[in-house]
Amino acid sequence: MGRPGGGATSAAVLIIGDEILSGRTQDTNLRDIAKYLAARGVDLLEARTVPDVLEEIVAALNALRSRYDYVITTGGIGPTHDDITADAVAAAFGVELVEHPEIIAMLESRWGEGGLTSARRRMARVPVGGELVKNPVAGPPGFTIGNVFVLAGVPQIMRGMLEDVGPRMKGGAVVVSRTLRVEGHGEGAIADTFERIANTHPEMSLGSYPFYGEGGFGTNLVLRGRDPAEVERTLGELVEALKGVGVESVREVPTA
Amino acid sequence: MGRPGGGATSAAVLIIGDEILSGRTQDTNLRDIAKYLAARGVDLLEARTVPDVLEEIVAALNALRSRYDYVITTGGIGPTHDDITADAVAAAFGVELVEHPEIIAMLESRWGEGGLTSARRRMARVPVGGELVKNPVAGPPGFTIGNVFVLAGVPQIMRGMLEDVGPRMKGGAVVVSRTLRVEGHGEGAIADTFERIANTHPEMSLGSYPFYGEGGFGTNLVLRGRDPAEVERTLGELVEALKGVGVESVREVPTA
Repeated sequence: MGRPGGGATSAAVLIIGDEILSGRTQDTNLRDIAKYLAARGVDLLEARTVPDVLEEIVAALNALRSRYDYVITTGGIGPTHDDITADAVAAAFGVELVEHPEIIAMLESRWGEGGLTSARRRMARVPVGGELVKNPVAGPPGFTIGNVFVLAGVPQIMRGMLEDVGPRMKGGAVVVSRTLRVEGHGEGAIADTFERIANTHPEMSLGSYPFYGEGGFGTNLVLRGRDPAEVERTLGELVEALKGVGVESVREVPTA
Repeated sequence: MGRPGGGATSAAVLIIGDEILSGRTQDTNLRDIAKYLAARGVDLLEARTVPDVLEEIVAALNALRSRYDYVITTGGIGPTHDDITADAVAAAFGVELVEHPEIIAMLESRWGEGGLTSARRRMARVPVGGELVKNPVAGPPGFTIGNVFVLAGVPQIMRGMLEDVGPRMKGGAVVVSRTLRVEGHGEGAIADTFERIANTHPEMSLGSYPFYGEGGFGTNLVLRGRDPAEVERTLGELVEALKGVGVESVREVPTA
């Protein structure tokens, strides 16, 4: 069903890195960002994963930043030759890269002047007009320019940086999620009922997710909306409607 | 560095589902597909995640299928109103959806004629010209049309369907991956050396990934290429070059 009605602010995520597309690394940043944005009422509407190739990053970034209120990128801001996110962001915005004095000072205090190799200096490069995004974990900061936030790919560091992103975004009404667990009934058994409820609540986003496993099988029904009263009302109507077709084994569970 | 040289066949993945973008579900299909394709010499060059919104799916699918040799979609082929992948694929190809007689027969034998609700019938819909993709796990099959493979979102089922996708793709020379684990040296300490090796082997794709944790810190260097002899040669040169800058704590580890 897509975005619940009433959303004010949209965002996209751009995941940068060969290691995701080669299967070497399991991305977990998208989910962390999704949860973080959801809690602030920002709708995450698209994600893309691209390799460490300049033109690919530039093209994806330009497509996303023109379409959504905010873009968050992850990955490619380390010191090695394959870390080209800063170059790509500068190219996308048509500005130069400069060494940020605060980051240089930070690196010097960490490594000493002699230890400031050309590789480490790479991490001080920020597009002209960019501002720093705090890194409370380890290493140099990320940065932000225009509506783009450029974060690290290492999950612990990414999560730390995210805490400095939220306060800079205009949020919206938070989406309220409720989940009904229906035991012993597959999606097909309840889909008609579910669709009927969905159609009478166009502002809500209703999703259906089967589960299988040792604990049996069934369907989780997820209801999302911005008006808590309507979410509550829809939940009640859905439980009643399911009873009406003989589905009694329904209980609310925490939304994952 | 992106794609290792010599690749013949390219692919993209399109992940369809609100549950990924809301943060409810951690996607694991991308990594499974990435590994599966890598083992067959097919380069995965992009992934996108879109919500359950028809126009978004159509637009992303058309962008990807015109650019890459193959597109694999996951999600949105169940029986509920939010399962609209078949509709979107048909719209993208400009063809009608029809009920596939094999799937109808399959559903009837599972549910009986009386149990074939309109919701379950949804799962029999295949775009005109599409062929079935076997589902060895549970439930109805996926389908393929043109250069697009449409698979389930449930990971167990997706993996099962994938086994019927590979044999239909033209593969290429498989990419060989080797990983060097460098203990006690961050990326910055070895990046200059690493870049020098990368520059002398433009056909190789070299990536650098820091690690931190209880077992200390360091950097994993991943070398990927299609010519096994060149991969071996590059690995040897890299080990020597690292020794040359005093980095001895290097050992090969299995590529994750």
